[in-house]
Amino acid sequence: MQRIYFDNAATTPLDAEVLDAMMPYLTTHFGNPSSIYSYGRETRLAVENARKTVAKILGANPGEIFFTSGGTESTNTAVCAAINDLGCERIITSPLEHHATLHTVEHLHKQKGIDLQFVKVSPDGHIDLNDLEKLLSASNKKTLVTLMHANNEIGNITDIHAVGELCKKYNAVFHSDTVQTVGHFPFNLHATPVDFINGAGHKFHGPKGIGIIYISEKNKISPFIQGGSQERNMRAGTENIYGIVGFAKALELATKNYEADKAYICGLKNYMLQQLQNNIEGVSFNGDYAGSSLYTVLSANFPKNEKSELILFNLDINNICASGGSACTSGANVSSHVISAINPNADIDFVTVRFSFSRHNTKEEIDTVVSKLKEII
Amino acid sequence: MQRIYFDNAATTPLDAEVLDAMMPYLTTHFGNPSSIYSYGRETRLAVENARKTVAKILGANPGEIFFTSGGTESTNTAVCAAINDLGCERIITSPLEHHATLHTVEHLHKQKGIDLQFVKVSPDGHIDLNDLEKLLSASNKKTLVTLMHANNEIGNITDIHAVGELCKKYNAVFHSDTVQTVGHFPFNLHATPVDFINGAGHKFHGPKGIGIIYISEKNKISPFIQGGSQERNMRAGTENIYGIVGFAKALELATKNYEADKAYICGLKNYMLQQLQNNIEGVSFNGDYAGSSLYTVLSANFPKNEKSELILFNLDINNICASGGSACTSGANVSSHVISAINPNADIDFVTVRFSFSRHNTKEEIDTVVSKLKEII
Ligand SMILES: Cc1ncc(COP(=O)(O)O)c(C=O)c1O
Ligand SMILES: Cc1ncc(COP(=O)(O)O)c(C=O)c1O
Repeated sequence: MQRIYFDNAATTPLDAEVLDAMMPYLTTHFGNPSSIYSYGRETRLAVENARKTVAKILGANPGEIFFTSGGTESTNTAVCAAINDLGCERIITSPLEHHATLHTVEHLHKQKGIDLQFVKVSPDGHIDLNDLEKLLSASNKKTLVTLMHANNEIGNITDIHAVGELCKKYNAVFHSDTVQTVGHFPFNLHATPVDFINGAGHKFHGPKGIGIIYISEKNKISPFIQGGSQERNMRAGTENIYGIVGFAKALELATKNYEADKAYICGLKNYMLQQLQNNIEGVSFNGDYAGSSLYTVLSANFPKNEKSELILFNLDINNICASGGSACTSGANVSSHVISAINPNADIDFVTVRFSFSRHNTKEEIDTVVSKLKEII
Repeated sequence: MQRIYFDNAATTPLDAEVLDAMMPYLTTHFGNPSSIYSYGRETRLAVENARKTVAKILGANPGEIFFTSGGTESTNTAVCAAINDLGCERIITSPLEHHATLHTVEHLHKQKGIDLQFVKVSPDGHIDLNDLEKLLSASNKKTLVTLMHANNEIGNITDIHAVGELCKKYNAVFHSDTVQTVGHFPFNLHATPVDFINGAGHKFHGPKGIGIIYISEKNKISPFIQGGSQERNMRAGTENIYGIVGFAKALELATKNYEADKAYICGLKNYMLQQLQNNIEGVSFNGDYAGSSLYTVLSANFPKNEKSELILFNLDINNICASGGSACTSGANVSSHVISAINPNADIDFVTVRFSFSRHNTKEEIDTVVSKLKEII
């Protein structure tokens, strides 16, 4: 039975073209980019060209792009730098953030006594901007606002321009976790009021173990990982050259076909939405699924009963990959902090499944999945 | 002209067999190991098998091995954990450590006021164990001792059993930077009094961007990178599966042929030593090169003059890769902190070149390099 992979928000397959671009660096071009002979300069050039490609696509300066080991390291870097280097004494975030953000800010709150406040969110999963302004205006403490761009579980997109303008008004530092949008959204960072964003290659058909952090050039911070002078003294450790080359190539491909891919994948999401509505009694959806929402993610609720409780298990038996809570963290069947935050009863009333799509998926796969779901329930 | 690569302490080419082991995970087996469906369990199994392989080879429990993005991240993790989680208020280290250690301890000294002391080193590059005991006994403050196993520039090997016993006697935490010995030395961590060691795949024909930290099971620490529950809550971020699989495979190969490879490479080092002595007037060597020294590294001093100052440049023109100071950090022609620490006049009197070997090198290459050196000088 053919596998159907509807878990692209967790991770995506590496594009064959991306692997092709990586291969020379996995074989002959292995020199250390920090070495002084020409053999190392080859790989240094590859790293710097990758940086330029990424910077150009995101509308940033090459000097603002740093390669890291992934989205999580980048979030840790941004949040810690805001506290340790930029003088922030308070953090405002939301209950909908990824654990990379939540666990980091909670740690800083507990260990360093940094103030920690959560902005209100609406039942459809959006940040309450009025509440954000209320929080920002209520204290003179220098503040870090960390709010994600697109939510990995429900897909909601936050208007980072609006958040950024508020942060500017109150002189706050703004980090946005853009792991779900880098490679899936047209950025122009020159014109975006944000201090830090991050990305992870494996979310857009690039390699795992590689990410970026964008650090607006107005911020001078110290490295999160200390040591050698790689990444212009901002991220120590011998460079993951193939990862870096693969990241840039994947971003290039994602951008080249962005409009067409978006239209195609959005078509899949809407088709699935409609097929579920037509075929599964009582199905509902989380977040602002028909509004400001990522075209890749559809979070569905199935009324809870003996059968629906085994949905994921039965999908798996049928070789269909989808996830319950966020798949980025644990196989443990714990309820999702995101779904609970927008609907405290969700766990009692529903079984939630996240379907997330890529350009490799098809309507036929959706038909198969929906008919399997009908059987299961 | 065939390239001659004598910079294996900086980085090594990926072994073809290692790449073969990685390929399935770069192509079809891409599932997120944290997901709940069987497709993710395939990759989770690969990660856990890799962990078991590494643990077995190093004589550790699988629960003591954690995958990271490299040697530098692992050092940062160990040093910060000793301060933040194990209550250390003082650090003893040496001036010969890698920047991953030195910059991290200096940062903790400056930012957190942690006491920082340097143990004396002998002119042949060994740690003075009497001085270490003097330092340890002089204070009741809980102490982290961080001393590297083999030095990446001069090759000296420290007796980590002797250091570890002293640390035990004075109740100090002991981290050893073993980046140059993991894959090049037979470990049995069950019988080694050490709290933390680290390794980097690319130093023994494994991939870049992947490393390990060994955390002795008696130490309970919090993660350096916070977020998802990967690596049993000790290192967050979607796993670099191919890196992990490649690390384990490379370590397996390194171990399988350890005795033969060691004898062969040591033969190369000794041959080069002898050929340089026979052919280059005034050449000398750094560290305990004929004693307790890594078989992969030979650090040579050439008397300084107009010609020798261009050695590295002229080697490069002849397609010979070797490095001056540590190549792990910067192309900048700054004098090495290691060489200066054992010979403050080195920079005035000599030009230092580090030759480092792997099983892919040959005596013929050494003959070529030595005759080129004769020409250059
Ligand atoms: C929104 C979001 N932020 C951060 C991360 C962490 O990225 P990574 O696991 O690649 O470090 C993920 C996914 O895992 C994510 O979806
Ligand atoms: C002794 C030593 N420690 C630490 C490192 C850092 O390892 P990496 O650059 O792979 O993070 C290196 C080499 O780069 C090294 O030789």
